[in-house]
Amino acid sequence: MTESDLPVAQLTPGRWGDPAHRVELPAAAVEALKHLGVQRPTAPTRAPGAAGALGATPLSFLTAVVGDEHVVTDLGSRWAHTRGYSTTDLLRFRAGDTSDMPEAVVYPASHEQVVELLAGCAEHDLAVVPYSGGTSVVGGLAPSRRFVTVDLRRLDQLVAVDEISRTATLQAGVRGPAAEALLAERGYTLGHFPQSYEGASIGGYAAARSSGQSSAGYGRFDQMVVGLTLATPRGTIELGRAPMSAAGPDLRQLVLGSEGAFGIITSVVVRIRPRPTERHFEGWRFESFDAGLTAVRRLAQDGPLPTVLRLSDEVETAVNLADPDVLGGGSGGVLAIIGFDGPYNQATAEVLTAAGGQNLGEGPGETWRTGRYRAPYLRDPLLDEGALVETLETAAFWSRIPALKAAVTEALVSALSATPPLVLCHISHVYETGASLYFTVICAQNDDPVEQWRTAKHAASQAIADAGGTISHHHGVGTDHRTAYHAEIGALAVEALQAVKHTFDPDGVLNPGILI
Amino acid sequence: MTESDLPVAQLTPGRWGDPAHRVELPAAAVEALKHLGVQRPTAPTRAPGAAGALGATPLSFLTAVVGDEHVVTDLGSRWAHTRGYSTTDLLRFRAGDTSDMPEAVVYPASHEQVVELLAGCAEHDLAVVPYSGGTSVVGGLAPSRRFVTVDLRRLDQLVAVDEISRTATLQAGVRGPAAEALLAERGYTLGHFPQSYEGASIGGYAAARSSGQSSAGYGRFDQMVVGLTLATPRGTIELGRAPMSAAGPDLRQLVLGSEGAFGIITSVVVRIRPRPTERHFEGWRFESFDAGLTAVRRLAQDGPLPTVLRLSDEVETAVNLADPDVLGGGSGGVLAIIGFDGPYNQATAEVLTAAGGQNLGEGPGETWRTGRYRAPYLRDPLLDEGALVETLETAAFWSRIPALKAAVTEALVSALSATPPLVLCHISHVYETGASLYFTVICAQNDDPVEQWRTAKHAASQAIADAGGTISHHHGVGTDHRTAYHAEIGALAVEALQAVKHTFDPDGVLNPGILI
Repeated sequence: MTESDLPVAQLTPGRWGDPAHRVELPAAAVEALKHLGVQRPTAPTRAPGAAGALGATPLSFLTAVVGDEHVVTDLGSRWAHTRGYSTTDLLRFRAGDTSDMPEAVVYPASHEQVVELLAGCAEHDLAVVPYSGGTSVVGGLAPSRRFVTVDLRRLDQLVAVDEISRTATLQAGVRGPAAEALLAERGYTLGHFPQSYEGASIGGYAAARSSGQSSAGYGRFDQMVVGLTLATPRGTIELGRAPMSAAGPDLRQLVLGSEGAFGIITSVVVRIRPRPTERHFEGWRFESFDAGLTAVRRLAQDGPLPTVLRLSDEVETAVNLADPDVLGGGSGGVLAIIGFDGPYNQATAEVLTAAGGQNLGEGPGETWRTGRYRAPYLRDPLLDEGALVETLETAAFWSRIPALKAAVTEALVSALSATPPLVLCHISHVYETGASLYFTVICAQNDDPVEQWRTAKHAASQAIADAGGTISHHHGVGTDHRTAYHAEIGALAVEALQAVKHTFDPDGVLNPGILI
Repeated sequence: MTESDLPVAQLTPGRWGDPAHRVELPAAAVEALKHLGVQRPTAPTRAPGAAGALGATPLSFLTAVVGDEHVVTDLGSRWAHTRGYSTTDLLRFRAGDTSDMPEAVVYPASHEQVVELLAGCAEHDLAVVPYSGGTSVVGGLAPSRRFVTVDLRRLDQLVAVDEISRTATLQAGVRGPAAEALLAERGYTLGHFPQSYEGASIGGYAAARSSGQSSAGYGRFDQMVVGLTLATPRGTIELGRAPMSAAGPDLRQLVLGSEGAFGIITSVVVRIRPRPTERHFEGWRFESFDAGLTAVRRLAQDGPLPTVLRLSDEVETAVNLADPDVLGGGSGGVLAIIGFDGPYNQATAEVLTAAGGQNLGEGPGETWRTGRYRAPYLRDPLLDEGALVETLETAAFWSRIPALKAAVTEALVSALSATPPLVLCHISHVYETGASLYFTVICAQNDDPVEQWRTAKHAASQAIADAGGTISHHHGVGTDHRTAYHAEIGALAVEALQAVKHTFDPDGVLNPGILI
């Protein structure tokens, strides 16, 4: 196969998302970047350099399992499957760095083919990286040794819908929009809308414990999964005979979040809901993030929760709102978004009003809704301009949220003091006992932006640990969070995970260096 | 120590619950049992026979850790810690069978003492059974080798309340009523009310993935736990920095349900809620179990759910209702109970009415509420009369519920055909995608009731597996369900659990033979 045989979406790798949806930075934003000292970089984007090739014997093995036409080894395909979409990934991609490039891309068509591939890889000394949407932002696709990528896009079926139980069986390679389209034909929705929605797929949602923008209403992806099938080098695991069980530990929750290190999730059974016939989104203004925090905590703890609930801090509100008059005449304050899949709930509005919120109407809500997948597209033009832009996130119990937010912000500002950053923050996932915090950092690139971000990220991770947060609420572990993750759960728990991995994958072919 | 030093609740072991709450069978019930062929047994209840004693060296080790006065070796204490409360356990207890008796009972006072005990037990060849409430009904306290019991009742503290996050840190030995009393002083409730409430404790709830009668409103215990501390022979595991996380698998859900085989849970952080200021319980009548099933599924899937939601089948309704006029003049039908912690929700009632339900008012609701912990007390006098009475439970996705119920009933009736049984069933835990089924079996004992039940239970377990249910929704695995459990998750998953156990407990001192 050659590059020209590849699906269109693979023709422009290393930049986020659907080419048709790409955005240009507004002139005002380009102007604003100058205040941060951002300058257009002079280093050219480089094409990929030389890279090791797969030997004839392992290639024969792969083609014997999936067929000649479903193993590709051309540079374009391999380059398109190199790394994910962290800023560091994008910078390395622009530099033509082929160090994390697969030696081949394999497209199995069934669970059985995946099992067969995994069972044989050890014999051919092939490490395997599972690939569904490729949207990892935490180094989930860059293992610590030479590897082949198993791309699951041919596992793209809605296998079954159980309308009595309201469950659907979806294969791992179904992308977010396809899952919604398939379910919509039957009148249902999954309700999982992460920012990676356009690119990510079912298997990735499961493997990385994804959480979507409608999590207040639909829950996290790990709460949607009631059953799953895992292909391991030693065979198949099938889990989930009931919504909940007391038959031992919940092993579904051991596989969800295992990030391809234990096996490849080939299908899941997920809870589905009737597709809503109406939707309502609106903006609310609070005097301050602290005031908004109390309001969203009130909803999380006493209800009634909307489907979408978000609260930006002062900086994010100011940066994101093109028109500050939205907040009522430049008087400052912060923006919250609420959304309902289904009828508008006046009781939710009453809680917000009682907590000091001011209803801004549907305008800001619709603006958010229509732009909800837009933010990641901004990163490529920002990098083009010479800005360093990246996100990170955490979660904690409510009582720790204010100090955690302050500590992470301070750590980022301090670590990037040579290129003073803007640090934006929002809450977008709430629970009775706590919430997530999502940070966006923008500053000028220095001469070595990869190292520049590594230092800042390390400082932020240490601040998260010290302030009692978790190293990731929904991005996952990958290679980027591995050290912090191990500190978070402790050496003995890491040993237990290694024991599980060794059981399923005794030769360590699966995602070496990712998670554990 | 001698038997007279033991707490009062230990003086009459082998019969369920608080002696002050014990009940006598109504004369009508005794009469009714005759129709099942039940005859008062002639075999006398026997005192415990001889049993092995702990050597001086291991005894010294135990007393060195917890102090002389906190290790007891008298027969009374040991007998009181022998087995749990399955019918088989009670029958063996009545027969004076000492085969599952601990050689000593140890009462540690802290997490550190538990770690020290576990770390030293291998050297002294001591297996350990963790004991909090002792209410297992699935053989959770009968390991496969000689052992000492670690009774956690001295770990009885409410350690902390975080009112902002609405969490409480409770030690493992706090019993249900004590937990509620401690939280009530601060204005909160845990909301966990299993039928074992009076006797079971926090550690047991966690280790066995308990689910309480108010699960529709408060969730299962495993959904309440946001953090936990585990003592293992190799040290301490602390889990839970946020309500939810994408930092790897949810290891809390690997410990919850591990039944003491991985370590001893010494404390948990649980979600708490404001104590309700009002409660409402009422009965509803449906024409048939099938009609009621549709109604409760409607509430589970589209809401609004009450706090308590139960539905008895025709047989259970007839047996449990002393006054059949409750259902409206002997016209048959089945009884459902709904309960609200907080204001009555008319919308719930409207869903039930639309599904063909008839509101019976508060009378049957209050009757259920006041007798909610009474059923287990009936078993002892039933056994006294010569009846065999036992319960079993399962859960499945909604679409499988009718066939699963029929298959289990048929299996029990068939296996017990020599002593035709009554088989009662109810639903008491619902989810969007499925529900639990809880069966009660009553028949005449034959000459070997332990074997009689073993055969019936085996048939029911096979029926559950064949019909796609889980072997336990909230009782757990213990030794009784171990074989069926392993078939349910498969040999490879069992190996993974063994690998986890070996990591935490390399010498296999913890609950050998239970779970795995």
